[in-house]
Amino acid sequence: MYAAIDIGGTKIAAGLVDTGGELLVRHERPTPAEEPMAAVEALLEQLIADPRWGRVQAVGIGSAGPIDAGKGTISPVNIPAWRDFPLVDRVSAVTRQPVTLAGDGVAMAAGEHWRGAAQGLDNAVCMVVSTGVGGGLILGGKLRPGPSGNAGHIGHICVELDGPPCPCGSKGCVEVIASGTAIAARVGGTSAIEVAESARAGDPRALASFDRSAKALAAAIASTAALVDIEAAVIGGGVAKAGDLLFGPLREHLKEYARLSFTRDVTVHPAALGGDAGLIGAAALVRQVEV
Amino acid sequence: MYAAIDIGGTKIAAGLVDTGGELLVRHERPTPAEEPMAAVEALLEQLIADPRWGRVQAVGIGSAGPIDAGKGTISPVNIPAWRDFPLVDRVSAVTRQPVTLAGDGVAMAAGEHWRGAAQGLDNAVCMVVSTGVGGGLILGGKLRPGPSGNAGHIGHICVELDGPPCPCGSKGCVEVIASGTAIAARVGGTSAIEVAESARAGDPRALASFDRSAKALAAAIASTAALVDIEAAVIGGGVAKAGDLLFGPLREHLKEYARLSFTRDVTVHPAALGGDAGLIGAAALVRQVEV
Repeated sequence: MYAAIDIGGTKIAAGLVDTGGELLVRHERPTPAEEPMAAVEALLEQLIADPRWGRVQAVGIGSAGPIDAGKGTISPVNIPAWRDFPLVDRVSAVTRQPVTLAGDGVAMAAGEHWRGAAQGLDNAVCMVVSTGVGGGLILGGKLRPGPSGNAGHIGHICVELDGPPCPCGSKGCVEVIASGTAIAARVGGTSAIEVAESARAGDPRALASFDRSAKALAAAIASTAALVDIEAAVIGGGVAKAGDLLFGPLREHLKEYARLSFTRDVTVHPAALGGDAGLIGAAALVRQVEV
Repeated sequence: MYAAIDIGGTKIAAGLVDTGGELLVRHERPTPAEEPMAAVEALLEQLIADPRWGRVQAVGIGSAGPIDAGKGTISPVNIPAWRDFPLVDRVSAVTRQPVTLAGDGVAMAAGEHWRGAAQGLDNAVCMVVSTGVGGGLILGGKLRPGPSGNAGHIGHICVELDGPPCPCGSKGCVEVIASGTAIAARVGGTSAIEVAESARAGDPRALASFDRSAKALAAAIASTAALVDIEAAVIGGGVAKAGDLLFGPLREHLKEYARLSFTRDVTVHPAALGGDAGLIGAAALVRQVEV
């Protein structure tokens, strides 16, 4: 059995996942602006009080990035209280278990590969398209966290040399064009869900905003295929829930951008794990990351 | 000892490389428009006639792409006579040796990792910037040819969603903005070498053309770092011979595009192997590709 922790800017979740990938119990707390470690410790105490805790062999953590897997520290953009915070040491001290840390996109990829839409795929990118755009890579049948634990940051590959500024400091990143935030901002809306409703009602500006997002994602997937030779992309997150509104134009644009003999057959699939992807993915890290 | 073959659109080379990475002998022929296999066979006969042939254990081939490593076939864009040509079977029949095939960018990366500027690096992209833009990846200390043998095609990642059309059929590819061909075309010149001379004499249009190429390469390297987590980029090929004219603006632009905690320290280095990179790289494939 594995203990799993999912660190996000809005909430922190912890759970127990069995070796078959079933989430047995889940606890969750809002991410406090101050002393967020207290929330993690409270969640861990809940897990430790569980009669099944004795069977836990290791702890996996997927965290909002950036992280530093080598040092075991995290500095999530959206959790300013934590900069180079030694999360691995702190969790290890509480649990007395080996701890594996990676970025949340990497964890999502590990989870989809273990139990979701990337099962059986040896070479794939898994993406989360939500308020931001994250991701992780499966290469040669194995997770590729990279030395920093942040590999797969497909939201920050540049698809417009002279494009709009990105919060990361660069410009023209996939995220600043394709995220739910960008879909809403382009039409002055408040959320991608609202824009999706307008698009379904036939509003051409709303449709165009989804199309622009789909175009950036298609170029990013084609670029990933050219660079690392993948067979498929798996897409989850809130924006992916728009279904054909996103996947329809995405598959069309992919035909335009993926033109090489070894990229043109890349396929696109919705993610399968939904809201539990973070915890199942964190547990999957323990199985997949070579320590 | 390894036999090495380097297949290009202009010339085909073959040689013997010892297990220390020294090129012992090199033969070369222009690539014939018709029956190019006859040229390969003639080169192999020259190698087989060499008294050292008896010590050859394997043959490595780096070929202009695209190739299909799984099928052992090649379909180089610039050698129309070969489409799905079974090069591995044909070379194997002549040499009676195991044959390893990969794209020329992958071979270059293998060579620079073995004996050149990427020695000792565990995570790097190696690039050739010439009439086109190619490349290969070293990930986790090992070559990443990918299932097709074409991974590392950094010249065909998209850096301009609505950019100029690329011969590959996509648009805004790095190659169509950054290649020597593009550098010359932007100022109506005949070659990047000529544009480099004008730039050194202070011609602002020539300088701007190199700057544009450097910008696209910087965005591509930053994107690669975000996606696969690399520590360095190694750049060879004719355009890299322009030296500071390319590397100066490239390093400046990299500061703009590589802004994440795990990408901002990526370094850029000139390739070390020069004209023998193709053959040494082809030999390096035999050592690195897991068959």
